[in-house]
Amino acid sequence: MARKLTYGVTAPRGFRAGGIHAGVKSSTPEDKLDLALVTAERPCEAAAVFTMNRVQAAPVKLSREILAKSGHKLQTVVINSGNANACAPNDMENARRMVRITEQALGIDAADCAVAVASTGVIGQELNIEAIEKAVPNLALALAMSEVSAYKAAEAIMTTDTVRKSLAVQYNSLGNTITIGAMAKGSGMIHPNMGTLLCVLTTDADLPAAKLQLALRNAVDVTLNRVSVDGDMSTNDSVFLLGSGYYATQYDEFCDALTGLLTSLARMIASDGEGATHLITCTVKGAADEYDAETLAKSVINSSLVKAAIFGADANFGRVLCAIGYTDVDFDPNRVDVEFASSEGSIEVCRAGHGIAFNEAKAKQILKEKEIEINVHLHLGQEAATCWGCDLTYDYVKINGDYRS
Amino acid sequence: MARKLTYGVTAPRGFRAGGIHAGVKSSTPEDKLDLALVTAERPCEAAAVFTMNRVQAAPVKLSREILAKSGHKLQTVVINSGNANACAPNDMENARRMVRITEQALGIDAADCAVAVASTGVIGQELNIEAIEKAVPNLALALAMSEVSAYKAAEAIMTTDTVRKSLAVQYNSLGNTITIGAMAKGSGMIHPNMGTLLCVLTTDADLPAAKLQLALRNAVDVTLNRVSVDGDMSTNDSVFLLGSGYYATQYDEFCDALTGLLTSLARMIASDGEGATHLITCTVKGAADEYDAETLAKSVINSSLVKAAIFGADANFGRVLCAIGYTDVDFDPNRVDVEFASSEGSIEVCRAGHGIAFNEAKAKQILKEKEIEINVHLHLGQEAATCWGCDLTYDYVKINGDYRS
Repeated sequence: MARKLTYGVTAPRGFRAGGIHAGVKSSTPEDKLDLALVTAERPCEAAAVFTMNRVQAAPVKLSREILAKSGHKLQTVVINSGNANACAPNDMENARRMVRITEQALGIDAADCAVAVASTGVIGQELNIEAIEKAVPNLALALAMSEVSAYKAAEAIMTTDTVRKSLAVQYNSLGNTITIGAMAKGSGMIHPNMGTLLCVLTTDADLPAAKLQLALRNAVDVTLNRVSVDGDMSTNDSVFLLGSGYYATQYDEFCDALTGLLTSLARMIASDGEGATHLITCTVKGAADEYDAETLAKSVINSSLVKAAIFGADANFGRVLCAIGYTDVDFDPNRVDVEFASSEGSIEVCRAGHGIAFNEAKAKQILKEKEIEINVHLHLGQEAATCWGCDLTYDYVKINGDYRS
Repeated sequence: MARKLTYGVTAPRGFRAGGIHAGVKSSTPEDKLDLALVTAERPCEAAAVFTMNRVQAAPVKLSREILAKSGHKLQTVVINSGNANACAPNDMENARRMVRITEQALGIDAADCAVAVASTGVIGQELNIEAIEKAVPNLALALAMSEVSAYKAAEAIMTTDTVRKSLAVQYNSLGNTITIGAMAKGSGMIHPNMGTLLCVLTTDADLPAAKLQLALRNAVDVTLNRVSVDGDMSTNDSVFLLGSGYYATQYDEFCDALTGLLTSLARMIASDGEGATHLITCTVKGAADEYDAETLAKSVINSSLVKAAIFGADANFGRVLCAIGYTDVDFDPNRVDVEFASSEGSIEVCRAGHGIAFNEAKAKQILKEKEIEINVHLHLGQEAATCWGCDLTYDYVKINGDYRS
């Protein structure tokens, strides 16, 4: 079993990181970090997955290009918050300038290896590239392997996040202790076709890029791709995985540890969804296949009405049935059971597609907890899937009613 | 051109209606009407469309069965609010009892014609059928052809609606004056695969059931099916159209008048979406085909982030681009123009996929109006589609955080 560590991208051997205030937005307070760097001591085997949105930010297009050109080798990822550099004037030129200044500051020769780039923030406004060009050399000097530097990098990529997402896991394989570190941001514009807005993963495992890519794709599919905050898929979603190659590992053990780490991140992201007061975990069991179970669980966590009911601690299972009914998955409504659960216990509210009498006071007590489970059983087959989301609150509306200002 | 009339289902020749307080919910105030009847003097040619949700309320299943059995003839529709009679104990039996008591009270012989039934309200709780059985005979005695009785029926089907939806249109064809009347309810759980929760249409046009069905299907597809409040498709959606057959009409003229009437209803429903402070009309032009345009326009009006931005009068066009990017429609992001408009004027904010400088004060002034247009031009082809929605507000969350209590 993998052990959790509290810190992040600098936990594996061979990585430095840091975060700095560049002043990407003139309105950003002086103490808000908004520029992050994660870099390896040497070229890494690298993997990445990006947003499926047809409208893609310039840094997504550029990073894809860079990975292809470098043969899936990366040494560094540079990320700013405060501006998504998407659909913005001079967006591609500014993304290239961000890469170039990073190469110069770190002395990386683009012919040997590569720097990937990501941005997050408002869409459609020109990036303040001068501020970034001024800050990168200072940030490059301040990079460290410390816990604090991992936290600073994780903080620098936050936008409306209220909690820093920085963690790592360790496991043993082939006599080695192998570490995987992670930082992520993701709070709004989160929808499960990619999963999170931005995530950088580092590891000292020795695996070739193709294996890392397969491990990442599979792990993201069952973790970050099963998170939804508001059903809006971002133009900037990017997940990078860099392997410094120090320690041999069994591939399956690496996959398990990576999936475990990303499950923890998925829960953190859903739990810190914009305005969220509850983490909602929906598990659909008894499905004919896993894809069906996933489709139904996603529909539940995406339903505005389910989300608002959980905000109100209301055991309104009718909305759960409604939400599984409007996907294109085939099932028999007359076999469906629904249960709500939390650390306060569990309560069955629907059996064979029909409401049953239940103790409203007990339901309320269960639903007032921070972490809520909605369990749906289809009684059709053996497959299951779990998805994560959050409630819909006044604060979600408040945060998004005036995000640009 | 059709002329609008202010009242509803009793405007066409041959229809009576009414609404009464039955006390379906014990908590319903005495002055809230919760049971409606619309009935014709004689058997009508009838058409209907129902929810596509796999989980369907008992009255939907029963009405479908009744229409098939009667050869698409209907004389009456009986509707309660306060309880959806969906996924509830004894739901099918109670739906049948509602039909039976209505047949008895109106002296309708089920062998000759038929009574359809609909319900709206909370899902999963047993219907108080005794209250309905007690109220129907009183309501039957009070039915009238008056304007007031049309309003009472429209009021009796309201749930979280704040505005009564009751209107009619008249047009001339073949020397006749033909009227189509309508009442509808729809406020939350509104998604464009059916469009509204409940709607009854009456007409004195003489058209066979098959023609009515075709006209209804086509008109609903471009009106009610293009409304979304929260993306949640109801288990109870039903639209009925009854033709009393008094006046001959050209079919095309009937279709135009019906589409015009349903467009007005679509706008009323979107405008009165739960908690809404803005009506949002999104038109996508320059598409390769109409279905593409509709898919993109729906994606925009369904986006929580776009909806929250309009609530905040924030010209955040990046969210519009983001929302059109995550459908499966193919287009070139680098050709897209976006404009916001209202009665205060219009403002272009994005040209050829990139943000342009615009006057923020003017944008704010435009977006503070109640009715907002979002116009997207793809510059690909000649097709267009318009969809209607509303903003996402604190009140949506409030209304749905504790709906059952």
